[in-house]
Amino acid sequence: MQAEYINPFITSLANAFMTMLDCEVRRGLVSLKDGNSPDYEISGIIGLSGRAVGTVVLSLSKEVALKAASTLLMCETSEVDAEVIDAVGELTNMVAGAAKSELEEYELAVSLPNVVTGRHHEIRFPSNVTPICVPFETDWGDLSLEVGFAPARVPVST
Amino acid sequence: MQAEYINPFITSLANAFMTMLDCEVRRGLVSLKDGNSPDYEISGIIGLSGRAVGTVVLSLSKEVALKAASTLLMCETSEVDAEVIDAVGELTNMVAGAAKSELEEYELAVSLPNVVTGRHHEIRFPSNVTPICVPFETDWGDLSLEVGFAPARVPVST
Repeated sequence: MQAEYINPFITSLANAFMTMLDCEVRRGLVSLKDGNSPDYEISGIIGLSGRAVGTVVLSLSKEVALKAASTLLMCETSEVDAEVIDAVGELTNMVAGAAKSELEEYELAVSLPNVVTGRHHEIRFPSNVTPICVPFETDWGDLSLEVGFAPARVPVST
Repeated sequence: MQAEYINPFITSLANAFMTMLDCEVRRGLVSLKDGNSPDYEISGIIGLSGRAVGTVVLSLSKEVALKAASTLLMCETSEVDAEVIDAVGELTNMVAGAAKSELEEYELAVSLPNVVTGRHHEIRFPSNVTPICVPFETDWGDLSLEVGFAPARVPVST
């Protein structure tokens, strides 16, 4: 896949934040992941499979996660509970789901969103995959998007 | 999906460890995840999608990850470097890939394996999904398998 695959994910993230959260995101410089990931506490992760296989990681500071969940749930929340986890998972699912329909030729399907918590956690990709990182600023704080793809493996005949 | 879906994953994990690593695993009690996950440092994670969507998480202590990678790479390794990450990702991919062919009716495809590192990281599932946890003991140390599935969402027509 060409690096242009990142564009639908950038658009879908901006759309999801604007339409669901009324929150404008300002995109920073797109880069190839070099191992020095931004160190956010909460990461939504979802797999994609089809004619390519990939992963979307949406990493949020605690502040952004709480604000996003409070907005989605329409009630203030101040701790990372199951509802916040669900909100972050759902945002990740929306970003991946909307982008995949712009990448029709890969016939991608999304898997289940999971959310990784824990200070200083790191989400690593296989060494033959170079994910693209996109930082964003919002009035709530910072976040980042990472997307990496590899060619689908040829199924082993059984 | 019925809870029996866990069985092919248990079998494929035992087979992968035996055939690839010459390491026997001893299964502990299968349980529903109740939030108190075993606290291992290194987790392989991979998504599945098809007629259901799910996630497989293979969590290893550092000792098990290093031993497994050393065996796969046929050279001793003592730090969690890119090769160890690749080995853990590949094991996770093998466990999910072999199990999915036993769950034909769900027409599952695997996504890209990622590996989460960091002490006290936690991998959370959506609150409407109750993953099944399976602890294992080996001569190298302990590990755990978590698998959770949800019904596939009906695609939104565009």
